[in-house]
Formats: sequence, C-alpha cells, structure tokens
Amino acid sequence: MNINGKAFRTIWVKPGDEKVIQIIDQRHLPHQFVIEELETVDQMATAIKDMHLRGAGLIGAAAGFGMYLATLEAPGNDAFDQYILLAAEQLKSTRPTAVNLAWAVNKQLDAIQNGNTIREKINIAFTIANEIADEDAEHCRRIGEHGLKLIEAISETKNGGTVNILTHCNAGWLAFVDYGSASSAIYTAHDKGINVHVWVDETRPRNQGASLTAWEMAQHGVPNTIIADNTGGHLMQHGLVDMVIVGSDRTTYTGDVANKIGTYLKALAAHDNNIPFYAALPSSSIDWQMEDGLKEIVIEERNGDEVKYMEGLCDGEIKKVLLTPFTSKAANYAFDVTPARLITGIITERGICEPNKESILNLFPEKK
Amino acid sequence: MNINGKAFRTIWVKPGDEKVIQIIDQRHLPHQFVIEELETVDQMATAIKDMHLRGAGLIGAAAGFGMYLATLEAPGNDAFDQYILLAAEQLKSTRPTAVNLAWAVNKQLDAIQNGNTIREKINIAFTIANEIADEDAEHCRRIGEHGLKLIEAISETKNGGTVNILTHCNAGWLAFVDYGSASSAIYTAHDKGINVHVWVDETRPRNQGASLTAWEMAQHGVPNTIIADNTGGHLMQHGLVDMVIVGSDRTTYTGDVANKIGTYLKALAAHDNNIPFYAALPSSSIDWQMEDGLKEIVIEERNGDEVKYMEGLCDGEIKKVLLTPFTSKAANYAFDVTPARLITGIITERGICEPNKESILNLFPEKK
Repeated sequence: MNINGKAFRTIWVKPGDEKVIQIIDQRHLPHQFVIEELETVDQMATAIKDMHLRGAGLIGAAAGFGMYLATLEAPGNDAFDQYILLAAEQLKSTRPTAVNLAWAVNKQLDAIQNGNTIREKINIAFTIANEIADEDAEHCRRIGEHGLKLIEAISETKNGGTVNILTHCNAGWLAFVDYGSASSAIYTAHDKGINVHVWVDETRPRNQGASLTAWEMAQHGVPNTIIADNTGGHLMQHGLVDMVIVGSDRTTYTGDVANKIGTYLKALAAHDNNIPFYAALPSSSIDWQMEDGLKEIVIEERNGDEVKYMEGLCDGEIKKVLLTPFTSKAANYAFDVTPARLITGIITERGICEPNKESILNLFPEKK
Repeated sequence: MNINGKAFRTIWVKPGDEKVIQIIDQRHLPHQFVIEELETVDQMATAIKDMHLRGAGLIGAAAGFGMYLATLEAPGNDAFDQYILLAAEQLKSTRPTAVNLAWAVNKQLDAIQNGNTIREKINIAFTIANEIADEDAEHCRRIGEHGLKLIEAISETKNGGTVNILTHCNAGWLAFVDYGSASSAIYTAHDKGINVHVWVDETRPRNQGASLTAWEMAQHGVPNTIIADNTGGHLMQHGLVDMVIVGSDRTTYTGDVANKIGTYLKALAAHDNNIPFYAALPSSSIDWQMEDGLKEIVIEERNGDEVKYMEGLCDGEIKKVLLTPFTSKAANYAFDVTPARLITGIITERGICEPNKESILNLFPEKK
C-alpha cells in the first residue's frame, strides 16, 4: 500500500543487496517512518520478539526471510544443517502464539533439505522466503475481494449511507506483507467508492490501533475515528456499528479465534447487539491440529511494564511515561480466544465460511 | 482512609478557616499528593468539570460545598437568591451524567430558602454541605458491611483461598468522601483478614484505575494487579476472577447502571462465564425518575484529546505524550449503560437487592 504516495510492502529484499532484508520498523509509527536493515538471524529474531514488526502474516514472512539469513550465515561445512535447525528453534521461540511463524520456519526447513549444495540451499531459502511473502500479499488481496461483498450488502441496506466498521488491533497491511486481513475489505470497498468509516480500537497496552491502524487508514484516505477499547459496546448499543472485522493470530479448524487481547469482549458485545462479527485471515493462520481454542492455545504473557509505561511523542521526541504507581504490579496477556459461537463468519482467501469444522474444511478440502 | 498512615477524606473544610474548602487534587495522583484550596464557586465548578476531583459521591459532596461557597460570595442584598440560583445552574452543568450533583445542589437550594437572613442561609449551607459529606461516608461504610458478606461467602467456598475481585475505574474512597463504594467491601474484607486480590482495570482513557485505584489499594495494603481494560474477559474465561464489583454514576430504579465506559463489556464477560457481577452504590446515585437507562441516561462526550494524549511521569516530571497520528480524530464517550439483565445484584447502604424495580423499592419503600 501507499505511504506518501509511494508503494511499500512491510518487508522486502534490499534492492541491489540480496544479503540484506529491509523492514518498516513499526515501533516508531505513527510519529516517524523508519526503515531497518536486518542481516542476521539474531537481528531478525530480535525484530520479531521486540516487535519492530508484528502481525500474523508479517511474522510468518519475517521468519521465512530469517531462515534465508540463516543459510547465509551458517558455516559452510557439515555443521550447516545443525546451524539451520538451531536458527529455526530460535525463530520459533520468539512469539509463541503466532501459528504463521512455525508454519513458515517448517516450510523453509522442508525446502532447504532438498538442496544438494549449500549454494543450492541458499537459493532455495531465498526463493521460498519470497514465495511466502508474495503468497501472503496475494491471499490478503483475495480476502479483500470476498469481504467486499459483505460491506456492499450492508451499504445497500443503508441506501449508500456510511457503513461503520469496528476493528481491534492492527490487522491492516502493516500486520501482513500487503493489503492486510481485516483491513483488506475496507480498502477494497473504499476504493470502489463505498462510504466506509472505521472505529479504530486503540488496543491497549501496545496501542497498535491508535498508532498503526489509524496511521495506515489515514495514509489511504479511509475516514476513521480512534476510540478507547472500552467504547465499542456503547457504540453497538446505540446503532453506531454495522459490522466488526478483526484479524486472527491463530484459528482452530473448529472456528475459535485467538486474536489480540480484548477481541473476545467485542465479540460478546456484537453478539448481544445482533451485529455481524467477522474474523478475516489467510489460511496460514489456521491451526489444523487444534480443536478447542480456549483449552489449547498458548497465550503469550508479556512484560507488565508495557501496561505501566506508555510511549508517545512529546516535544518532538519519543518519550515513555509512567501511568501507575511505580511499585504497582501489572499483568500483560497478549491475546484472548473468541469462541466460534460468537463469530458470524470467517473470511479467507478462498471465500467466507461459518466458524465450524464442516464449513472450514469445505473451503480447504485438502486438509480433510 | 489512610495516606502514609494519616487519615484523610477527599474533601473537607480547612481547619481554622471555614471560608476555604480543601480537596485532594487527584490530577496529580499517583505521582504527587497535592492538596488544593477552593474559595469560590468558579473554582469549585472548575475542579468538578476539569476533574481535580471526580466520582459519584465526591462530585455530590463537592457540589454541596460549592453551594456553601456560593452563599459566602453572593451579594448581601435582594440579588442573593438570584446569585444562588445561577451558582446552582453553573454547578449542575459541570458533569451531566452524575445524578449526585443535581441531588446535592437541589438539597442545598431547598434548605437555603429556609433561612430568614443571609447569615442564617450561610449557616444552613455550611451545615448541609457537611451533612452531605458525612452521609456519603457513612453510606459507603455500610455498603462495605453488606458487601463483605458476599466476599466472605466466596472465601468459604475457596476454603480461605484468595478471592479475586475485578473492578473497573475508581469507585474507591477517592471517588467518594471516604471508604468508596466498590472498594468498601474489599477494604472491609481485607481488614478482617480475608485473602483478597484485586484486578484493577486501568480504565482508559483517563486511567483512573491505573492511577487512582491501584494507588489507594496499595496505600491500604490490598494486593492488586493492574491490567489493560482488554484483559478481564480472558481472566474470566480462565477462572481467575471470582466476582466483579463496580460503582455507578447513575442507576435507574429499574436496575440499569451507568458507569465508566467499558463497564458493559465486563458485565457481558461476567455473564458469559457465570461470574457474579455487582454494582455498589449509595442510594443517592439512584435516579427515581428513570426507567430505561439505555434510552434515557445522557452519556457525556468528552474531548477526544483525552484519548489521543496520555499523561504520566517522565524524568521526574508529569508529561503528556501523543499516542496517535497528530491529525487523527478520536471519540470519547465517558460512560456506558449496563442493562439490569447482566447484573447479579446492587449493594446499597441498606443492603443488597436484585436489579429490578420491586427489589430496589423494597429497600427504599419511601420512594414507592
């Protein structure tokens, strides 16, 4: 998507230097636009773990490029394979909840072993990393086409009046390689001239909505309003939300959706007010082994300081302020699980399905 | 309650100078403890409107003292009554949602007109202001005694194990004259040696939980953990919350509860997980005219900058940081309404009742 009129992805091979991966360092958004160069597995693991980049699809693409960087730095002898396996473990351990991460790493491991020489293995890793990124972008584009129909239908019932869509966290193009999941249908509808307005949950504690979603929506010209996470229920009670679209970090094949902490609360409110609630996700986010999201999905706990301190712009500099008593304890669960019973539908690259095993497997029969 | 071992209320007449009202200026908490002196109606109106003080009971007491200040500064001639009426309107208009405000102002208006001389009117206003404050404290103390039984019962089912209580915003003693509403039973239980632990919703956008509730709980020695507002649903899904107690800014006589924005979302989650959800409130918060909270209660909209900017401590100073793109729009609804159907019970100074007209009027038969 465009930034200041120039097309960008969130991760790419540096033009003219294939040994360097470039990313948008999202820690500086929305105040500064910074491109970071990554040349080692350690750097990529840090970028994932410390959230220079984040989001289901982008984490997968980053892991793919991380494995490529591993092939570049691995010793050129019998220790090569062992080095690659260690790099794989390192990358997988950075964010436990994101299914795309292990998926991309395993895809690379499977492919790399088909190379007969180290040069071949490097070439394979490069190709696969780019394929993962391209596929992510293409899947997101298709999600937008399918989701567009839902927005068009609501627009028709409102005689072309504004369709108000609430979203949580950033499942925008900054969370993927391009287009985004939850955002893709919104961009597609906006580009077609449908009147859309987005309620952007600020998404505490890391404020991905306030800092990333609001920024990318504004860059694309989509009308949006930032709200505290507490606000969505009130808006829904008063008819100010027509639909909810969120992303997903891990989805069971039975339709339970793990997404940013607080998603479950919005699903409850949507259900209580008969408002359609959709999760938009590429199938790479679907965990084909997990049946019960609430019992089985491991929820990452992050440092409580992310709750206690907040970063923002002050006098032209990024500063961190303490919100709480200095000695207070804070808990910081990063995700929650929305049970399938609260979800209207799942928007995938192959179409829209109901949040249950039968409907999901009908779209992905090869997983049966 | 105690601050650094010394007993305080949130508002009081300055010892040795009855023309000055002192308050804890809560804007500086939890980082600095500042006492502000108020000598005019204008100053009191500003203190209420700009939230130097806040909270249902405290706003009522402040309005009572504000009317007393009005009698002091009113002209000593025929214009006295007109001046008092204008001051009443000024105070009432500061915070539209809080029912205690109009209640306290009207109580003063009724009483003041019984004075035959201006000196008598001033004396009456002084007495009534102190009575309103004392009654608020006493009602909160009784709420704690009634609510204690609920906590004791849960403690028994857990064989004395920790009772985990989630609260939203600050319905602590800082929101009243003393004890608090939602907090009163917690303090009472803690003082009796019951193991309680409080999940403190940070309560965006103004962070009253993170800054005020966490501070006052810590001052009293009650174990507590601050969480993002998004977190409560996840905790409830995983058995980490035994009960929810919130306050109320306005309660219909049918049991609908207007409280800080986001309360409705926690009530939905409690309901979905079979967790008892209580609103604790002195009867001064009950609106005996309103039948349908969702349709009738006016919800205050505040400046969007409260969402976009956040204040906290940075390098020893209070600083304000921008969280969002500079040009972004933010909406800031201050309260929402939790319908009676999601509420387990209402804890008042006279006891606990169900959230319906019959049960509420049985406790307050004089309102029939």
